[in-house]
Amino acid sequence: MTTTPTKEDIQSYFESLQDSICKSLEKADGKAKFHEDLWQRPEGGGGRSRVMADGKIIEKGGVMFSAVWGDLHEKMLQSMGLTEKVQFFATGVSIVQHPVSPKVPIIHMNVRYFEMSNGAFWFGGGIDLTPHYVVDEDAKWFHQQLKNACEKHEANYYPKFKDWADNYFFNTHRNETRGVGGIFFDYLKPKETGKTKEQLFNFVKEIGESFAPIYTKLMAKNKNIEFSENEKEFQLLRRGRYVEFNLVHDRGTKFGLETNGRTESILMSMPPMARWIYDYKTEAGSEEERTLSLLKKGINWA
Amino acid sequence: MTTTPTKEDIQSYFESLQDSICKSLEKADGKAKFHEDLWQRPEGGGGRSRVMADGKIIEKGGVMFSAVWGDLHEKMLQSMGLTEKVQFFATGVSIVQHPVSPKVPIIHMNVRYFEMSNGAFWFGGGIDLTPHYVVDEDAKWFHQQLKNACEKHEANYYPKFKDWADNYFFNTHRNETRGVGGIFFDYLKPKETGKTKEQLFNFVKEIGESFAPIYTKLMAKNKNIEFSENEKEFQLLRRGRYVEFNLVHDRGTKFGLETNGRTESILMSMPPMARWIYDYKTEAGSEEERTLSLLKKGINWA
Repeated sequence: MTTTPTKEDIQSYFESLQDSICKSLEKADGKAKFHEDLWQRPEGGGGRSRVMADGKIIEKGGVMFSAVWGDLHEKMLQSMGLTEKVQFFATGVSIVQHPVSPKVPIIHMNVRYFEMSNGAFWFGGGIDLTPHYVVDEDAKWFHQQLKNACEKHEANYYPKFKDWADNYFFNTHRNETRGVGGIFFDYLKPKETGKTKEQLFNFVKEIGESFAPIYTKLMAKNKNIEFSENEKEFQLLRRGRYVEFNLVHDRGTKFGLETNGRTESILMSMPPMARWIYDYKTEAGSEEERTLSLLKKGINWA
Repeated sequence: MTTTPTKEDIQSYFESLQDSICKSLEKADGKAKFHEDLWQRPEGGGGRSRVMADGKIIEKGGVMFSAVWGDLHEKMLQSMGLTEKVQFFATGVSIVQHPVSPKVPIIHMNVRYFEMSNGAFWFGGGIDLTPHYVVDEDAKWFHQQLKNACEKHEANYYPKFKDWADNYFFNTHRNETRGVGGIFFDYLKPKETGKTKEQLFNFVKEIGESFAPIYTKLMAKNKNIEFSENEKEFQLLRRGRYVEFNLVHDRGTKFGLETNGRTESILMSMPPMARWIYDYKTEAGSEEERTLSLLKKGINWA
């Protein structure tokens, strides 16, 4: 028996997803606990922001849930070519984790659902990995997990969404990808995909639920690797690039800041500390140089 | 005898301004020297980037000169409502200084000249001060210097350009000004101002030459003030806001990054290190709280 999920079903699923991911991350970290802030949006809806800091493995990380509604913002009406007032409902879970160690990668995950009073609705989301130092084995394994998850739902999802991530998580002004990519998808609608709403929701659930097993495994695998001062310094520089991507290019961040979203929740993605050195150059033959050479589109990791 | 300055005159003046400011800053710092990079722009022109790091007073600072030309970028044609291809010439000096001590303010200065093959030309620029801790005496003195400089040229310049700076150097998503403001001006043309090109150039020279005396005085006055770990931490948080302003709102930065400008020169404005704490709150009655209360528009400092 299949049932068409309502926005309430999706919202309540995302809340439970936030709960389970927070539990998994706390367990994996072993020290820090999430601090919760409940917030309300004057125009409708609100959220449950959960942030942890100064953990054994996680230096600063957020797992944010929100469900907001109201009149669609003027900017969004314009970008969609809509001329009449429309109400929207949007709900999602967003995650960014900045680890203490340069040997543990930064990760980002987002799953979201959007619907409008004119009947249109779609799902979006993605996961991408930003190692401070690219470890081929980890990048391959990470992509393989995403490929497996995608293939349970549709053969072309992984190649399509992997390319989309390569193009989306790209610092054009640096001509480099944010990290080793992952998957990114948006505007998943029944008509364009040939899937029912329930099937699309099941795919988004699959991605949401793949986050904790993937990241806790990468945490456990890399947490005890020793690192040098020099590697810590390189981590701070890579975090600088992460800041640049999020503030200059990330659509969600820009849209949130422009439309009076909750700034502290949006900018939970900022690292605890970041560094900029003018015209920094890696040493020839170094691990840093190797990592930079792998920050490009089109690498077939899986 | 008056002469109408050519673009070559203006460019050569800006080069000499960069020279004299670098000399003054090196002398005031007493330790660090500027490192120079010459760069060329494939489409026409280039620049002379000068950056100093790890000084006694300046932790990271840039004094950048550039003179570039070519076809006006599609984005700029659009924003100006132009439909035909136009050639442009742009030259200017841009400065940002990030001091070691939280007791020494961050400063920014820019002077620029722009002309197009259709005959239009204008001057722009500004200076603004971003203290990590607002010191009323310094803010007043700073604004008084700018007021004096403006009043040599036109009675309404200071109030007009001071308001413009309040509105421009504003982090809308934080609802706070970047610092204590200063002056900002753009599109200064003979027709709109009732001034000759030479008079406008003289005003821009006045502002350019006011930079070194102003900032070296603030450096000398504050460099030996002791500071705590807590104050250093607050400086890192304030630098985070500086990053946010430059990457999210600053028009020059956005335009440069979008139009394939030299990224390292544009992002010399980034601090050497910056920090983000989720939902940071100042203590009631603290100096930090006082500073935040003064980061608003419309304070009559002069």
